[in-house]
Amino acid sequence: MRKTAFLFLIMSSFLCAQKISTETSECLDCHIAVTPGIVSDWKSSLHSNSSLKLAINRGELERRISITDINGIIPTEVAVGCYECHSLNTDSHKDAFDHFGYTINVVVSPNDCSTCHPVETNEYGNSKKAYAHDILKKNPVYSMLVKTITSPKDFDEGEIYYHGSNEMSSGESCFACHGTVVDVEGMKTIKTDLGEIDVPNLTNWPNQGVGRINPDGSFGACTSCHPRHSFSIETARKPYTCAQCHLEPDVPAYNVYKESKHGNIFSSKHMDMNFSNVPWNMSKDITAPTCATCHNSLLVDNDENIIAERTHDFGSRLWVRIFGLIYSHPQPKSPRTYEIKNSDGLPLPTNFVNVQATEFLIDKTEQSARKEKMFNVCRSCHGSNWTEKQLKKIDEVNSMADQMVFTATKMMQQAWEKGIADPSNPFDENIEFYWQHQWLFYANSIRYATAMMGPDYAGFKNGWFQASHNLQKMKNLLNAKK
Amino acid sequence: MRKTAFLFLIMSSFLCAQKISTETSECLDCHIAVTPGIVSDWKSSLHSNSSLKLAINRGELERRISITDINGIIPTEVAVGCYECHSLNTDSHKDAFDHFGYTINVVVSPNDCSTCHPVETNEYGNSKKAYAHDILKKNPVYSMLVKTITSPKDFDEGEIYYHGSNEMSSGESCFACHGTVVDVEGMKTIKTDLGEIDVPNLTNWPNQGVGRINPDGSFGACTSCHPRHSFSIETARKPYTCAQCHLEPDVPAYNVYKESKHGNIFSSKHMDMNFSNVPWNMSKDITAPTCATCHNSLLVDNDENIIAERTHDFGSRLWVRIFGLIYSHPQPKSPRTYEIKNSDGLPLPTNFVNVQATEFLIDKTEQSARKEKMFNVCRSCHGSNWTEKQLKKIDEVNSMADQMVFTATKMMQQAWEKGIADPSNPFDENIEFYWQHQWLFYANSIRYATAMMGPDYAGFKNGWFQASHNLQKMKNLLNAKK
Amino acid sequence: MRKTAFLFLIMSSFLCAQKISTETSECLDCHIAVTPGIVSDWKSSLHSNSSLKLAINRGELERRISITDINGIIPTEVAVGCYECHSLNTDSHKDAFDHFGYTINVVVSPNDCSTCHPVETNEYGNSKKAYAHDILKKNPVYSMLVKTITSPKDFDEGEIYYHGSNEMSSGESCFACHGTVVDVEGMKTIKTDLGEIDVPNLTNWPNQGVGRINPDGSFGACTSCHPRHSFSIETARKPYTCAQCHLEPDVPAYNVYKESKHGNIFSSKHMDMNFSNVPWNMSKDITAPTCATCHNSLLVDNDENIIAERTHDFGSRLWVRIFGLIYSHPQPKSPRTYEIKNSDGLPLPTNFVNVQATEFLIDKTEQSARKEKMFNVCRSCHGSNWTEKQLKKIDEVNSMADQMVFTATKMMQQAWEKGIADPSNPFDENIEFYWQHQWLFYANSIRYATAMMGPDYAGFKNGWFQASHNLQKMKNLLNAKK
Repeated sequence: MRKTAFLFLIMSSFLCAQKISTETSECLDCHIAVTPGIVSDWKSSLHSNSSLKLAINRGELERRISITDINGIIPTEVAVGCYECHSLNTDSHKDAFDHFGYTINVVVSPNDCSTCHPVETNEYGNSKKAYAHDILKKNPVYSMLVKTITSPKDFDEGEIYYHGSNEMSSGESCFACHGTVVDVEGMKTIKTDLGEIDVPNLTNWPNQGVGRINPDGSFGACTSCHPRHSFSIETARKPYTCAQCHLEPDVPAYNVYKESKHGNIFSSKHMDMNFSNVPWNMSKDITAPTCATCHNSLLVDNDENIIAERTHDFGSRLWVRIFGLIYSHPQPKSPRTYEIKNSDGLPLPTNFVNVQATEFLIDKTEQSARKEKMFNVCRSCHGSNWTEKQLKKIDEVNSMADQMVFTATKMMQQAWEKGIADPSNPFDENIEFYWQHQWLFYANSIRYATAMMGPDYAGFKNGWFQASHNLQKMKNLLNAKK
Repeated sequence: MRKTAFLFLIMSSFLCAQKISTETSECLDCHIAVTPGIVSDWKSSLHSNSSLKLAINRGELERRISITDINGIIPTEVAVGCYECHSLNTDSHKDAFDHFGYTINVVVSPNDCSTCHPVETNEYGNSKKAYAHDILKKNPVYSMLVKTITSPKDFDEGEIYYHGSNEMSSGESCFACHGTVVDVEGMKTIKTDLGEIDVPNLTNWPNQGVGRINPDGSFGACTSCHPRHSFSIETARKPYTCAQCHLEPDVPAYNVYKESKHGNIFSSKHMDMNFSNVPWNMSKDITAPTCATCHNSLLVDNDENIIAERTHDFGSRLWVRIFGLIYSHPQPKSPRTYEIKNSDGLPLPTNFVNVQATEFLIDKTEQSARKEKMFNVCRSCHGSNWTEKQLKKIDEVNSMADQMVFTATKMMQQAWEKGIADPSNPFDENIEFYWQHQWLFYANSIRYATAMMGPDYAGFKNGWFQASHNLQKMKNLLNAKK
Repeated sequence: MRKTAFLFLIMSSFLCAQKISTETSECLDCHIAVTPGIVSDWKSSLHSNSSLKLAINRGELERRISITDINGIIPTEVAVGCYECHSLNTDSHKDAFDHFGYTINVVVSPNDCSTCHPVETNEYGNSKKAYAHDILKKNPVYSMLVKTITSPKDFDEGEIYYHGSNEMSSGESCFACHGTVVDVEGMKTIKTDLGEIDVPNLTNWPNQGVGRINPDGSFGACTSCHPRHSFSIETARKPYTCAQCHLEPDVPAYNVYKESKHGNIFSSKHMDMNFSNVPWNMSKDITAPTCATCHNSLLVDNDENIIAERTHDFGSRLWVRIFGLIYSHPQPKSPRTYEIKNSDGLPLPTNFVNVQATEFLIDKTEQSARKEKMFNVCRSCHGSNWTEKQLKKIDEVNSMADQMVFTATKMMQQAWEKGIADPSNPFDENIEFYWQHQWLFYANSIRYATAMMGPDYAGFKNGWFQASHNLQKMKNLLNAKK
C-alpha cells in the first residue's frame, strides 16, 4: 500500500520509456475507461514494460523468452500489449472476430503464447496438465465418476436416480480445474458503453482450467498460473496459485505445505524473499521453497551453477504419483493416461488389487533419474543424509497407505459378492463412497503429509485416524446387512 | 516491522500537529500505562491524526464523514479521541457511568458513530446485519435450531435430552456473530492499578456481533468490521474481516474466495495494493478485488467516474440469497426476515418444498437493478460477455443445488411419514442432521464455489461429492429402520 | 522482494564487520556451494551478525542470551557460526564424527543451545513440550491410542486386524510433532560433490518434534520453533510456527485464532508490526497479539515496565488444560504426565466419568496465580471488566463441553455393557471412534472457540452442531444392534 505511489512512479517511467504500438494504443484508449482493472493490471506487468528486443538481449539464464530469432513475429521494439497477443494466429481461431476494425481473438491460447515462449509451451503441451480435460473425459472410469458425483439427483419409490444434465455442475467443479471445451456458437450482441457490439458466443466460458481446450484447438491455459493481465512470475511462484486446485481433501498439497516448516517460513518471511528473479538464486533469493521451487523453476547456486533446469512439465521431477488414483504408482510414461490398459482392461495405472500396468509406467531407471533431480533441489538446503532418509520415508509411507486402501477395497469387494452393493458402478453406493474416501482423501493425505512433513494430515486430519475409523464404518455396513 | 520506525515518525509528526482535547489528554495520561495497546492502536488511526475540520475539508468523494454540518457536535479542531466518542449521548446509555469525574459510556454504539457518519449508520441500520440478532431470536424456526444445537445434552434410558441452559453456548457460537443483547445489571467493583473503581456490569459481554443490541438500544457494532481502536478502513477492506463469520462449512465465502483467482492474486500481491484510498480507484489501487470491493466500497475509474456507490447495506448489490436458508431465493424486501410468512405460515422465504413467499421477496425489477450494480463492478476487470456468462452460471447452479436439497427433503419427509423421525422439531434427529448438512453445508458450498469460482468447494470439499454421498446415507437410514 | 537488495546490503556490511572464526570459514568455503540455502539462511540470522561480546553488552531486557559469564565457552568476538554450535559437547554426542578433520555433531541439541541460552533451555526442559515424546510413549493409554490408529490394517473373515509395524506411520504422524528418538546406528557412506564421506546413520531422522530425544540424550528441539539456520525470533513469534502442530481438528488453536479479531488484525496489519524487538513493547510494536504474545514472550509497556516475564515453559500462564484429554482439568503439576494416577489407576488427569486426579494437578492458588499472569497480558489492550468476563466465560464453556463428552461417554459405556463394543481397547471400534470425535475434536473446538473468540468452531465447524449430531449417531449405533 505504502509502496504503491513509488511503484507507479517506477512503472510510469518505464511506460514512458517503452513505446506502445499504434494498435495497442487504440485498444487502451477505450479500455482504460471500460475495463480499467485490466489495463491497470497489464501496466504492472513485464509485458508492458519490456519489448522483444529488450527481452532477447538479456543473458541466457536471465532471459524470459525462449524464441531465438525475434524477427518477423511481432514488432520488436514495442511493449507486448493488447494487440500483440490478441491478434495472433487469427486464422486458426474460431473466436476471431472483427472488433472496431481489427481482427482479434477473445482467448489468447498457449499456441499464441508459444510465439515468444515456445520451449515452455512445448513442455507444458507434453505434460499431464495439458491433457487434464481429456484425462477425465476420455477415460470411461473417470467419466463415470464425474457423472455419478455431479449429476443432480431425485428420489422416488425408495431409489435415488439421476435427474437432468450434469454439464454445468461438472463444469463448475471437476472441469473448472481440469479445463472445459471452449467453443464458439456463432455471434452474440452485447451492450457496451460504446453501443451494441457483436462478439463470439463462447461455450463453457469463463474457464481457466489447466487442460482447457481452446477455440483454436490448443490445449491448456497459461493463465491458470500466470493470471491475466499481469502474467506475473511472482504470482506463479507463490503457493496460492497451486492452491487453487491442489488442496484438501483430495489433493492436500497446499494444506500440508502450509503446516510444514517450508510453509511456516514462507508465511513468516515471504516479504523478505525475492519471487521475481530469473534465474532463482538459492543462495540469495529465498530461505524456504514454494511449490515452484521444487517442481519447476530454474534454480542456481551462488555462482550461477544450475541446480535444476526450468520445466513446465510439472511431473518431470517426480518419480511416483500419489494422488488421483487408487494406489500410488510410478508416473505414467505418457500424459494421455486414458491410453493405459491394466490387467482388467481398464485405463488405470493399477488394477483394484494394486497390480501395476507396468508397461505404461516409467521404469526404474527413469524413476531414479527423476528422483536425482529432486534430490539435488532438496540438497540446496539439506545435507545428503537428511535428504536420502526423507525420500526413503516417502516410499515406505506410500506403501503403508496403499495397504490401507487395499483393505478397504477387499471390504467393498465382499459387499459386491454378498450383493450388498452393485459393482457395475463402483462410485455410487454408500459403502462405495466410504471406499472412495479411503483412497481419494485419507491415503492421499497420509502420503502428502509425509512427502512435505505436515504431520496433522497424516494423523487426525484426514489421515490414519480417519482411515482407521473408515474401515470400521465399512465393516458396520457389511454387518448391518448380513 | 522494518517500516515501524518510519510509521511512528509519521504518526508522531501528525500527532504533534494534531491538537488533543483536554478530556482525552486526561484519558491518555492513565491509559497509556494501564492499557497501552489500546492507546497505541488509536495512535495508528485516522481518528487520532485528523479532526472534524480536516475531515470536512476533503473533496466530496475523498471525504470519510457524511455529516454536512460539523458545528455543535464535538470540538472541530481536535483529534477524535477517547472522550470525543465515549462521552456521546450518555442520556440514552444504560452503561453511562462516572469515571474519575467524567460521565462516559463503556460501549460506543452505532448511534454514537452516526454523530459523524450518519449515512453509513443509516444504511447499516436498514440492513440484515443490523437485525442479525433478531433474525435468529424472533424467528421461532431459527430459535428452535439454535436451542436444539446449543443445548447441553444428557442421555438416560436410551434417550438424549436437553440438560441445562444454552445461553452461554449460544452466546459463544451463534450469537457471537449475530450479536448478543448487551445490557447493564447494576455496577460492579473492579481492581485496577489505580485502586478499586465501580463500572457498569454488562451482560453478554464481550461481544462484537454484527447485530449486537447495545445498552443504548441501538443495533449493531461498527467494530465488527472496523475493529477498535484503529477503526482501519484497510482492515475492513481486507478479506480476513469478513472471514471472521463468513467461512465454511455454513457460509464458505472466505474459503471459496481464497481458492479463487481473486483470492490468489490478493494473497500473492496484496502488499503492492492500496487498501486505504478513498475513493477506491480501480485503475490504480488494486489488481484483484476483496469482499468489500464487490459488495460495498465506493469504486471509481481512472477519471474518478463512479463505478459503484458506497453502501453499508451489504445486500444491496445482491439479487439472490444463497446461504442460511433451505433453498436459494430472491433477497427479502425487509431486513426483518422474521416478518416473512410462507405458505405454511412459517417465517421462512420458501416452504420445505421450495415454494417462495413471493410477496416478501424483491421482485424481478429490483433483482435486475441489483444485478446491474454487480455487473458494473465485475466489468471493471472483465468484458461484458465474460461477466454475463458468469452471472448466468450462478442462477443455473443455484437451481441445481436446490434440486439436491429438494431430494434430501423428500427423503426426510418420507422418514417422517414412516415414523422413523418426528417432524415436530426438524433439526434434532439423525436423519434430520443429514438433511441440514445438505442445505446448510453442501448446497451453500456448491453455490459459493460457482459464484466466486473456487471449484473444490463444489467438488470434493463439501460439494457434489458430499451431497451425493449424503443422499446415500439418508437412504441407508430410511432402509435400516423399515 | 523489493527489500532484498537493501537487506543484503545491510547484511553484507554487518558480515564484513563481524569476524568469522577460522573453523567456520572453512565450513562456509564448501557449504556455500553444496548447501547454499543453509548458508544464505544463516547469513540472514542474528547469529551471523553478532557475537557473544556484542550480545552480552546489550541492556538486560534487550539481551538475547541468558548466560552471565561469556568467557571460556566459545570465542567471544566472532559470529556464532557453523563450528561454534556443531562442535559443542561432542563427548556426549553419539552423532559426533570426524568431518574433514573437525569433530562435529550432526544434531545441535537443546543442551548445546544452553551454552548461551541456559535460562530458556531450563524452562523448556521442565515443560510438557520437552516431554512430548515420553507423554505418548510412556503412557500405556496413549500408547494404545497411537498403536490403534497408526497400525496398518487388514481385513479377513469379517474382522479388521493389525498388519505390520507402525513405527514409520506413527513417526510421520503423532511423533512428527511429539518428537522421535534420534539415535545412531553406526556410520554410513554417502556421495557428495567432494567424493564419498562417512557420516553417522541417524534413526527416525529427519524430525523436529518438540519432544525429540537427541543423540546426546537431551530432550526437545529448539528448531521446532526457531527453524534452522536463521533461528529467527520473528518466525517464532508469528502464528504460523505454532500452527505446524496446533491446528484442527484436534488442537484448533491456530484455526480459531485466524478467525478471531486478533487473527484478523494480525493478518490485515502484520506488515506494520514489529516481531523482532526485545523486549516486545505493547505500546509500540504490535496492535494485535500472536500466540507468543499471550503465552511466552517478555512484554513491556511504554515505560519498559514488565507486563509479563519471558518463559519457555508454554503452560506457565495457563491454569486449565483444554486439549488432548477427555475432560478439561487444571494443568498437571509435573510435565511427566505419565506419572499421574487417577481413581482407576490410569495415568490420566481425570477418569472416564470426569473425577479429577487432584493431587497431580495444580491447586487453586497456583491456578489463580497463573490466571493473574494471563489477566495482565489481556489488560494490555482490554479493560479489567472486559477481561474478567472473558476469562469467566472460558470456565463456564469448558464445563459445558465436558458435559457433552460425559454424555457420549455414558453412551459408550452402555455399548460396552450391552456387548456392542469391547472395553479392552476404548479406541478401536466404530462407536468408540465417535466417542473420540466428541472429546478430541468437538469439545476441544468449543473450548478453543470461546477462549479466543473464533465462534464458528463452537458452532457449525466441529462445534455444537457436530457434537449434537454425534450423539445421535452414537444413539443410532446403540439401537441398531439391540
